[in-house]
Amino acid sequence: MIVCPDEGQERDVAVGELRLEAGATLERPTLRAWMWSSREDHEAFSAGRPLPPRPTALLLHGLTQGARAGGEGGFWAPLVGKGRPLRPWAMRLLSFNLLGSCRGSTGPADPGFPTRDRDALFPPPPSLVRGAPSRAERELPATVTPRDQAAAIARALDALGVATVDLVAGGSLGGMVATWLPALEKGRFANVLAIATPLASSAWMIGWNHVAREAILADPSYPEAHNGVAVARQVARLTYRSEVGLGELQGRRTAGAFDEERGARDEAWSPRGSYRVESYLRHAGRAFDFDARSYLALSWAMDHHDLARAPDFADPSARYLVVDIDSDRLVDAAAVDALARALSAAGARVERLTIRSTRGHDALFSEWGELTRVFRVALSASTPNPSEQ
Amino acid sequence: MIVCPDEGQERDVAVGELRLEAGATLERPTLRAWMWSSREDHEAFSAGRPLPPRPTALLLHGLTQGARAGGEGGFWAPLVGKGRPLRPWAMRLLSFNLLGSCRGSTGPADPGFPTRDRDALFPPPPSLVRGAPSRAERELPATVTPRDQAAAIARALDALGVATVDLVAGGSLGGMVATWLPALEKGRFANVLAIATPLASSAWMIGWNHVAREAILADPSYPEAHNGVAVARQVARLTYRSEVGLGELQGRRTAGAFDEERGARDEAWSPRGSYRVESYLRHAGRAFDFDARSYLALSWAMDHHDLARAPDFADPSARYLVVDIDSDRLVDAAAVDALARALSAAGARVERLTIRSTRGHDALFSEWGELTRVFRVALSASTPNPSEQ
Repeated sequence: MIVCPDEGQERDVAVGELRLEAGATLERPTLRAWMWSSREDHEAFSAGRPLPPRPTALLLHGLTQGARAGGEGGFWAPLVGKGRPLRPWAMRLLSFNLLGSCRGSTGPADPGFPTRDRDALFPPPPSLVRGAPSRAERELPATVTPRDQAAAIARALDALGVATVDLVAGGSLGGMVATWLPALEKGRFANVLAIATPLASSAWMIGWNHVAREAILADPSYPEAHNGVAVARQVARLTYRSEVGLGELQGRRTAGAFDEERGARDEAWSPRGSYRVESYLRHAGRAFDFDARSYLALSWAMDHHDLARAPDFADPSARYLVVDIDSDRLVDAAAVDALARALSAAGARVERLTIRSTRGHDALFSEWGELTRVFRVALSASTPNPSEQ
Repeated sequence: MIVCPDEGQERDVAVGELRLEAGATLERPTLRAWMWSSREDHEAFSAGRPLPPRPTALLLHGLTQGARAGGEGGFWAPLVGKGRPLRPWAMRLLSFNLLGSCRGSTGPADPGFPTRDRDALFPPPPSLVRGAPSRAERELPATVTPRDQAAAIARALDALGVATVDLVAGGSLGGMVATWLPALEKGRFANVLAIATPLASSAWMIGWNHVAREAILADPSYPEAHNGVAVARQVARLTYRSEVGLGELQGRRTAGAFDEERGARDEAWSPRGSYRVESYLRHAGRAFDFDARSYLALSWAMDHHDLARAPDFADPSARYLVVDIDSDRLVDAAAVDALARALSAAGARVERLTIRSTRGHDALFSEWGELTRVFRVALSASTPNPSEQ
């Protein structure tokens, strides 16, 4: 257990036996929880006692992040702290690493995590590419869905003694899970903020996730697959950007040819040089340390998102704030509109905002001014109950 | 030599020693030529004699196609023939496989093609991904640019005795080469049709080409790299599509779970199934037979496209028809506008059209109605000289 009183605290929370939507059963899954809250809360959290009543914001990460939302390395760190929308002195900040990840929660990198061939319901898929090792097929993780990830979080909230949540916020995969939570537990989540989140994953998104998986499964060292994961990460990095934003960042500048006389690289264009976007991507690939099986599991979870599969997916007692990013190439405004329309048609209260950015899907974890504005709107309705302060 | 009087004829054309822009020299390069024309033309073509004067349309393929433009398997087959814009009875149809390809022309799969480490001007690039084999670095092909590809075509036209060309048409990489031809040889190309062609490759396009190359170079079997090429192809297929077009084609339908009782796959949604877009892409990857080194060379050529590097890139005697595809995610309208503006500012006559399609970049080789319209406009000004009929 890591105790960081200044930046929150982490703990593993047991969620009990969990039968996954696709059929496999997890016997003793745990979720890595991160909390930044009052002293009283931290004492209870450390001791494994139920948390006392307090307004709670539940923050959910994207595809490959961990539970830590605020403080150094937190996925929404610039939104957390003094003068920022998320203040641990005003409300409990809580976050969980998603089921299937390799950042502390139970996932396919753990011994005993079910694989497809142990689960009779999953036939082995066809060979992925020519000569793909049958070993990869044997070791494909069992399917986890955003619904399963939400179910695990609901049980973790039970285990922590958190009865109601004032705001659940997430984007991308985190937004999918955020919309599943009130679908599973009506009345428990007062406000839902879903950014860059579709009603259902599109063929376009599934296609990109598929290509990233192909890169991983083409690596003969799978499930190690360092090179395959590096390529997958580069595919994902590009889908998270916009053309305009990438151009602003990288232009067509070359790293330049190596000038042997000067012993330095030439910044002028040269057919001998490589472009800055290439070193940017290559660095992103190399620096990415993530378990290949978790990457498969989490990207499959994203593919399987289809909120309207639930018969009553909208919670009429919740207020939904549904937000798109105008330059997003992965989840566009129309996809986000579809979520807003479906929730509204099903009787939920829905507000709709747009984040203006040239950063594409990445704006979710980088366009801090716009995110601050959106979080202030999301929190405006969740006035903390004075008796719980 | 293949003689197909009904669908054109192919021949290798020697272009003489060629010094590439980046420094390496090709000693005896050849281009695979395809021609569909009059009987007189075919007799001269077969015998290696200069072709007699006749109106000529020069058709240039995209990244991975071959020289064959019309007839079975031709990249623009539905535009060629009776009642179609390109009629071999009205004008000579000519096409070349681009330098660097593996479809008949000289390229890095040929023994003796220069590699980067044989060319002192090219320092070896940094390792591509963790553990990338140094063998891959040693066997990277020397850089070819669209300017080199245009220069080779100009010499091949000389060798065939074709003095002037009424229309040069290309899209994507073919369009880049099409705009370089009049930049190199003023007054030789009366009409230039460039579809989905930017003034210079964007960081966005370079990024996608880079990711495809990373997939190839992460394959330890490089330069064989069947799996790497299959992944690269899937990346490219997706960048060639649009979100809307892919959705129309694939939806979110799953191939379905395997139902053991029925012995068949279930078409209903299931977290056990895989999505149709996945089998579509996987099939595209598996069916793609292309040399890995040629893929590197041609995608690098595309990256290095920057027409404005030439001091006088616009031919004031040529008429340019510059066309974008409204759903193109790789080369958008703004990039095509930049080409039109630059040519116009440099004194060329420029017309601008848009292809309406949901097919994205792929419309270039699939939106036949719109392409027919565009080719008719392109050919409207190139009235064949009656004396040459």
